[in-house]
Amino acid sequence: MANLDSVLACLDLNLDRSVGRLNDLLKIPSISTDPAYAADCRRAAEYLAGDLSAIGFTASVRDTPGHPMVVAHRDGPEGAPHVLFYGHYDVQPVDPLDEWHTGPFEPEVKTMPDGSKRIVARGSADDKGQLMTFVEACRAYIAETGGLPCKVTIFLEGEEESGSESLIPFLDANRGELSADIALVCDTNMWDRETPAIATSLRGLVGEEVVIKAASRDLHSGYYGGAAANPVRVLSKILAEIHDDNGRVTIPGFYDGIPELPEEVRRIWDDLGFSEAEFLGEVGLSVPSGEQDRSVLEQLWSRPTAEFNGISGGYTGKGFKTVIAAEAFAKISFRLVAGQDPDKIRAAFRAFVNERLPADCKAEFHPHGGSPAIQLAFDSPYLAAARTALSEEWPKPAVMIGMGGSIPVVGEFKDRLGMESLLVGFGLGDDAIHSPNEKYEMTSFHKGQRSWARILAALGERR
Amino acid sequence: MANLDSVLACLDLNLDRSVGRLNDLLKIPSISTDPAYAADCRRAAEYLAGDLSAIGFTASVRDTPGHPMVVAHRDGPEGAPHVLFYGHYDVQPVDPLDEWHTGPFEPEVKTMPDGSKRIVARGSADDKGQLMTFVEACRAYIAETGGLPCKVTIFLEGEEESGSESLIPFLDANRGELSADIALVCDTNMWDRETPAIATSLRGLVGEEVVIKAASRDLHSGYYGGAAANPVRVLSKILAEIHDDNGRVTIPGFYDGIPELPEEVRRIWDDLGFSEAEFLGEVGLSVPSGEQDRSVLEQLWSRPTAEFNGISGGYTGKGFKTVIAAEAFAKISFRLVAGQDPDKIRAAFRAFVNERLPADCKAEFHPHGGSPAIQLAFDSPYLAAARTALSEEWPKPAVMIGMGGSIPVVGEFKDRLGMESLLVGFGLGDDAIHSPNEKYEMTSFHKGQRSWARILAALGERR
Repeated sequence: MANLDSVLACLDLNLDRSVGRLNDLLKIPSISTDPAYAADCRRAAEYLAGDLSAIGFTASVRDTPGHPMVVAHRDGPEGAPHVLFYGHYDVQPVDPLDEWHTGPFEPEVKTMPDGSKRIVARGSADDKGQLMTFVEACRAYIAETGGLPCKVTIFLEGEEESGSESLIPFLDANRGELSADIALVCDTNMWDRETPAIATSLRGLVGEEVVIKAASRDLHSGYYGGAAANPVRVLSKILAEIHDDNGRVTIPGFYDGIPELPEEVRRIWDDLGFSEAEFLGEVGLSVPSGEQDRSVLEQLWSRPTAEFNGISGGYTGKGFKTVIAAEAFAKISFRLVAGQDPDKIRAAFRAFVNERLPADCKAEFHPHGGSPAIQLAFDSPYLAAARTALSEEWPKPAVMIGMGGSIPVVGEFKDRLGMESLLVGFGLGDDAIHSPNEKYEMTSFHKGQRSWARILAALGERR
Repeated sequence: MANLDSVLACLDLNLDRSVGRLNDLLKIPSISTDPAYAADCRRAAEYLAGDLSAIGFTASVRDTPGHPMVVAHRDGPEGAPHVLFYGHYDVQPVDPLDEWHTGPFEPEVKTMPDGSKRIVARGSADDKGQLMTFVEACRAYIAETGGLPCKVTIFLEGEEESGSESLIPFLDANRGELSADIALVCDTNMWDRETPAIATSLRGLVGEEVVIKAASRDLHSGYYGGAAANPVRVLSKILAEIHDDNGRVTIPGFYDGIPELPEEVRRIWDDLGFSEAEFLGEVGLSVPSGEQDRSVLEQLWSRPTAEFNGISGGYTGKGFKTVIAAEAFAKISFRLVAGQDPDKIRAAFRAFVNERLPADCKAEFHPHGGSPAIQLAFDSPYLAAARTALSEEWPKPAVMIGMGGSIPVVGEFKDRLGMESLLVGFGLGDDAIHSPNEKYEMTSFHKGQRSWARILAALGERR
């Protein structure tokens, strides 16, 4: 622990310098979705590779058909685990520009009325500030101890905000180099200002479009109404049967294989102080709409859903047209949890629809992606080490949370490299990522660095 | 009957000349929806007023904010009924022009391989040929007998194909002049080539748009899916409950006050030789979708419906978006039959929706028109006279049919002038009205004239 204490002291002593380095990175407008900024994206990658080389990594900028990747390695002690750190150096566009109080690429440290400081710039929280917490932890570790407690690979992407088109080919082509014992992904939030969070589950997704077809052409509802099959009616009826009155999905086998939440996790979630009323109230709602015997956090994090994302059929313009449409469609997504197989869910849905098709109606299905849920084993030793380390750094113990949506890279790490991910991030809900005046709390940046130093130390002790 | 016989003989003798007069009218491109043809519309009105004056009507062209009306009067014998004949002199546009085999406004009489003749031109069937059958009957009657057996008002509109915007104000402003004992509307079809038809019922219509609103904004289905109310789901569920498994509408009171079909009418419909398989097969269907204990003709003509004409909510573009929409809407129409009150049906539908709204959801309603059904009393003496007259002219007896859609002018005659309508027309299903190569059978034109002569005679005998 003497080593760790000196690393933490080094981080405290060098905070201003680390802010300066972050600012240098924030000044580079690495907007990946806009081709006009391609050179800036490369410049950001080169800046990072240069910085990592300077602190003792073997770092390189690696070309892709899109923006380059940065890959850096530094060996660790014999027998220590190999960790892969993931972050992204690209940022979102800045419009509407006139809503920014300062230039999006002119980072400023702003002191708030309560004395807290924040770094304001595009990318400060998403994800340059976050990725630099890890880089600074490594820098201090190497400076104070001459090395790192684990073998570390740093993998930084430049297309996260624009579809990650190069990610899968790059993972496939560099499988050996990027495979590690565990991935550390730093692109998420704390639970609150005092409570660090580790996201241990991410829901998967199955997207389906179903088209119901009946007559060979649109019909006049005066001439045919009453006699002709109406696809809007058929589709509505099928959709209506997907949920029962208690909000449960009725598709046979839908819940098969889903484990119950471990008691410890349920207790943690119960203790989070999550306000269902506030969460729903923010968007004008008051009553949870999912399974009636589940809390909202369960509905969002650990239970699967069937959501109707879009529906269309017949005349939808202004005014009225007395038409019976020849077809109608719906776009439906299923959020999956651990234990559910996307292919089986897709097949079960299609069977559910086909069994309900009345005479003269056909159903066409178009798949729109499918990925299983991510679930880090609750007894993972990496998870235990990270929980302890985070709990020592922050005022409140680290919590394990779920995420209702997906983070594609985590799924790809699992699918392509067979690698679990620890999702640890220090963002806050009000960081305004993707919006004007994006900021990152100085506390996030500083204690984030210290958190990674503690996590690296804890993981290193596991050898 | 001596009078009638000579009138019929006169019509036979002058058929060629009557075709010549129709051709003069068909040559005028009175396309009402295109302002470029406004002068032609007026020319058609002036032609008709001139022709009616020439045969002894007091006829005038009456200006409106749109295209003019033609109104013509000729008195009848003391105590004879007053009939109002309605037709329209305007026509549909002609595109696609290159699909016409002859110029749309260069009428030609074409002889078919079976020896039958047809008049080909835009408006030949809809509605210039039809309206001229009545004018020719009057011409022959006056020529042969010196007068008409009834008091006759001829009312010809020039905006039927473009929304009839001037119709209601004109009816209101000329109520006394246009009110008659019965309206004769000649803008419909025969049942088949040998069987004349009188449409005795027309379904009414209530149009409603319902918007279901939940959250205050669109939500991400990963972050909110499972917990947030989904308007597409709510709307689908409500729509699905509008019909039961037997195709009956479940809205309370929906069928209240609807009389059963008289046995005689049911027998006529059963005897029509209507092929459900052929009717549905033409549009790729095979199984009637309405009330399971009703024939297709009943479903179309004498039973009300709830049809979903359009639905939309959430993301409906290409690809996929994991959104939970803030709102979704449906456009719904109810076809009404005699005994149903549009206002009551609208209110019952709204109550049905409101009773099913879950927490956090609101419904907004937008009315899109409402009109009651039209039902000519089955014991109407005018109907009896027309049936007899038509049955004497054609190979097969006249049938009473229903129409699934509405003919606005018939509703307006009823509402504004308190006048029932006899719908008698000589068009055929293959006349290609509104399409290239529109035609009117010479038999329709000739026997149509003779039919009107017989109907006028029969109505005149009623005094």
